[in-house]
Amino acid sequence: MTDAAATASLFVIFGASGDLSRRKILPALHQLHVNGSTAAGCVVLGLSRKPDFDDAAFRAIGKRAIIDESAPAADIDAWTDTQFHGQSIGDGTSEDYVALRVRIAALETAHGPFGVRVFYVALPPESFPAAIAGLGNVGLAVSEGETRLVIEKPFGHDLPSSRELNALVHTHFGEEQVYRIDHYLGKETVQNMMVFRFANAMFENLWNRNHIESVQITVAEELGVEGRAEYYEHAGALRDMVQSHLTQLLALVAMEVPGSMDAAAIRSEKIKALRAIAPIAPSDAVLGQYAAGRIDDEDVPGYCQEAGVAADSRTETFAAIRLHIENWRWQGVPFLLRTGKRLEKRVTEIEVKFRRAPVWMFREMQQGELHRNTLVMTLQPNEGFSLYFDVKAPGEPFRVQRMPLHFDYAEAFTVIPEAYQTLLLDVLRGDQTLFVHADEVEVAWTLFTPLLDGAVGVLPYPAGSEGPTEAAELSSR
Amino acid sequence: MTDAAATASLFVIFGASGDLSRRKILPALHQLHVNGSTAAGCVVLGLSRKPDFDDAAFRAIGKRAIIDESAPAADIDAWTDTQFHGQSIGDGTSEDYVALRVRIAALETAHGPFGVRVFYVALPPESFPAAIAGLGNVGLAVSEGETRLVIEKPFGHDLPSSRELNALVHTHFGEEQVYRIDHYLGKETVQNMMVFRFANAMFENLWNRNHIESVQITVAEELGVEGRAEYYEHAGALRDMVQSHLTQLLALVAMEVPGSMDAAAIRSEKIKALRAIAPIAPSDAVLGQYAAGRIDDEDVPGYCQEAGVAADSRTETFAAIRLHIENWRWQGVPFLLRTGKRLEKRVTEIEVKFRRAPVWMFREMQQGELHRNTLVMTLQPNEGFSLYFDVKAPGEPFRVQRMPLHFDYAEAFTVIPEAYQTLLLDVLRGDQTLFVHADEVEVAWTLFTPLLDGAVGVLPYPAGSEGPTEAAELSSR
Repeated sequence: MTDAAATASLFVIFGASGDLSRRKILPALHQLHVNGSTAAGCVVLGLSRKPDFDDAAFRAIGKRAIIDESAPAADIDAWTDTQFHGQSIGDGTSEDYVALRVRIAALETAHGPFGVRVFYVALPPESFPAAIAGLGNVGLAVSEGETRLVIEKPFGHDLPSSRELNALVHTHFGEEQVYRIDHYLGKETVQNMMVFRFANAMFENLWNRNHIESVQITVAEELGVEGRAEYYEHAGALRDMVQSHLTQLLALVAMEVPGSMDAAAIRSEKIKALRAIAPIAPSDAVLGQYAAGRIDDEDVPGYCQEAGVAADSRTETFAAIRLHIENWRWQGVPFLLRTGKRLEKRVTEIEVKFRRAPVWMFREMQQGELHRNTLVMTLQPNEGFSLYFDVKAPGEPFRVQRMPLHFDYAEAFTVIPEAYQTLLLDVLRGDQTLFVHADEVEVAWTLFTPLLDGAVGVLPYPAGSEGPTEAAELSSR
Repeated sequence: MTDAAATASLFVIFGASGDLSRRKILPALHQLHVNGSTAAGCVVLGLSRKPDFDDAAFRAIGKRAIIDESAPAADIDAWTDTQFHGQSIGDGTSEDYVALRVRIAALETAHGPFGVRVFYVALPPESFPAAIAGLGNVGLAVSEGETRLVIEKPFGHDLPSSRELNALVHTHFGEEQVYRIDHYLGKETVQNMMVFRFANAMFENLWNRNHIESVQITVAEELGVEGRAEYYEHAGALRDMVQSHLTQLLALVAMEVPGSMDAAAIRSEKIKALRAIAPIAPSDAVLGQYAAGRIDDEDVPGYCQEAGVAADSRTETFAAIRLHIENWRWQGVPFLLRTGKRLEKRVTEIEVKFRRAPVWMFREMQQGELHRNTLVMTLQPNEGFSLYFDVKAPGEPFRVQRMPLHFDYAEAFTVIPEAYQTLLLDVLRGDQTLFVHADEVEVAWTLFTPLLDGAVGVLPYPAGSEGPTEAAELSSR
């Protein structure tokens, strides 16, 4: 890997005037600049279909995107005015890509040489193939230094299409050049999962079927489809969340201890864990779609009443999946994946329930349920850990009460970097650990493709609820 | 067992005008009265050597002892004026005990019948035998209901004397009537230890030589001998703390899971654990005596300069012991007991160090020490638990940091009862769980008697330090 801290780099953004560029990529690049992570120089070349897109247009976008209270406007101006360049990619003809190659050569003469070139395809998924082929066909997939391709999910919309996309990518780029972004992997808690598991022997010693009863991964949103209906109508919760974010979290929880912290070693263990998942029967999935309801004391419409959604849409906005990993570590331990829009409260968490004590020693003092030790790793809204355990409530009568041992990331550490900042730095450095391998994409699609497009009925649930009641039965089964 | 909530009870205090009675026993009895725990009536009969000690004298002592902001003075008056009685026990002749028997009969006629009679011997240790024999000789060791004897540590001053005391007790009382108080066992955290271990399967699964590297039990005081020189000169840290409090904590940490929460089952497991301790060689003990030093920015004198202490005293004010429990659970795990006066800070805690991860996965990112997971159960100054674990510090560069998962008893529960309140209620109810069995006393003396009275040299340490440096070597060995 070549480290962008030690060499000048070129960062090319397809879709430079788009939402992702403005909201995530440019602020993250700016923060890396401010932190000195790109001290050797990072030229940002913005591409747009607009015919008149030029340096001035991109710089204007950059300045608007980077509103940073801690950085003086003059500094932002100085940075964008020297490092930002804009270019139209037009309709993406061969001539357009040749012009891009010429422009990059000119920038390299002026600013380079670039030890690292990054092409970030921040485009809608239907435009991925043209951009990837466009780069490859004019020889931009290789350079004197390192050339890296960044693509965002969705990586296909089912197993055949993901294989097609991977095949196209691999026609032009080696897998070691490809950085598939799942921004969940840039979150500190997700990175921390590896430290949590592999630096803390006491937890890893318990991390198996002998001690763990079940694992539940939840990504619950309060928001509805929020103006993304056009995309969401063709996606739904399985494609949008389960196949990507939830599967990634699952792989990190379930994987074996890798031989080292190399990207290859870690990704290989993730793929192994995913491949050990038994095929998921439609009866192990509950899909739902939100109906009108109330959230935070406000009436909200049902999914089919949202702008841009078909009145008879069958797109699922909720999915709960029960699955089993058939290996020595996890045999018999149910894993539950749950996600949905318009749920009761926003929370992303991984709940690991440990097995109960074999004997409830306190049965003569206290009737009732035997508690389980439970570890909750929270990613949203507050990153942290809670380990629920039983304590004796003080005084009389004798009473055992469940309480948390608690750790809050933000309380302990004041500054937590944005996921994109972490991920873009890794791209510049050439560390693929937090990016999704082609094989991970395909195994995930292999798992969930049989559940797509009508294979499982879609049940209504009121907005503001916990989802269809059938999903709760799935957990308690 | 007969429950004092369901029957009137008589609570007789030897040494009613003494320090322990005024500071601990009477306030605890009052709190039990206020809580309704003695709703069936509890008559308190105070005994004193003073010839003129009578109802009025004891009531005056009671009112002064029970200054309770939450209880109106009129209520305290009403309680003491009806329930408190005083009597002189004179020089403790047969006639004096016969007079006591007559007085108790009269009180029983007026207030009874008493389902439970408690005799609390709150006297200096040299007066224990006379009181116990005095009661037994006039037939007060038995009654129509239950008769219970409460004695405070020290239970003897070495193995022969403790056997002698137990033999005397057992001449008159059955072991099931005897409540030996070690007030540490009344602390919530100590009681909680059983809940912690036996309700939380995840910890109990780790609670053995495979997962635990060492256990250290610390009772550190900032205070010096504080006017107790007369007692302390003949005791020292081994007798005052190690043989009693620290051994009790050790037994609770180390014992096997009892078959039930019965007092008999629990005490039997504690005795088994203590009996499995290998004989302690003098080379496994470090004793110390504080010299002059500074604590909290104040100069404090050395032990030998304290009032009432011999200028050439060899009494130890510090003890550190390394021991091994030779059973399947604990073989090879060192247990360290540490206690001392005039140490750096006041803390009572049990530190359980878990074994490190077999491989330090993050060696390429971070040099240095591999941390251990550590569980710290704190009894003083704030009762609670901290579980130290490694997390990833946010951002760059990659850094693993040790942080606590934390639980504070007082934050979670506002009211924590005094140890004596818990213990006296158990006496009234007839629950011996939190009291020390005769066999526990003898096995503890068996362990520590070989280290007493000059068998181990006494090293000086400056007040305000962590004790003799040799003690630190004992831990790291």
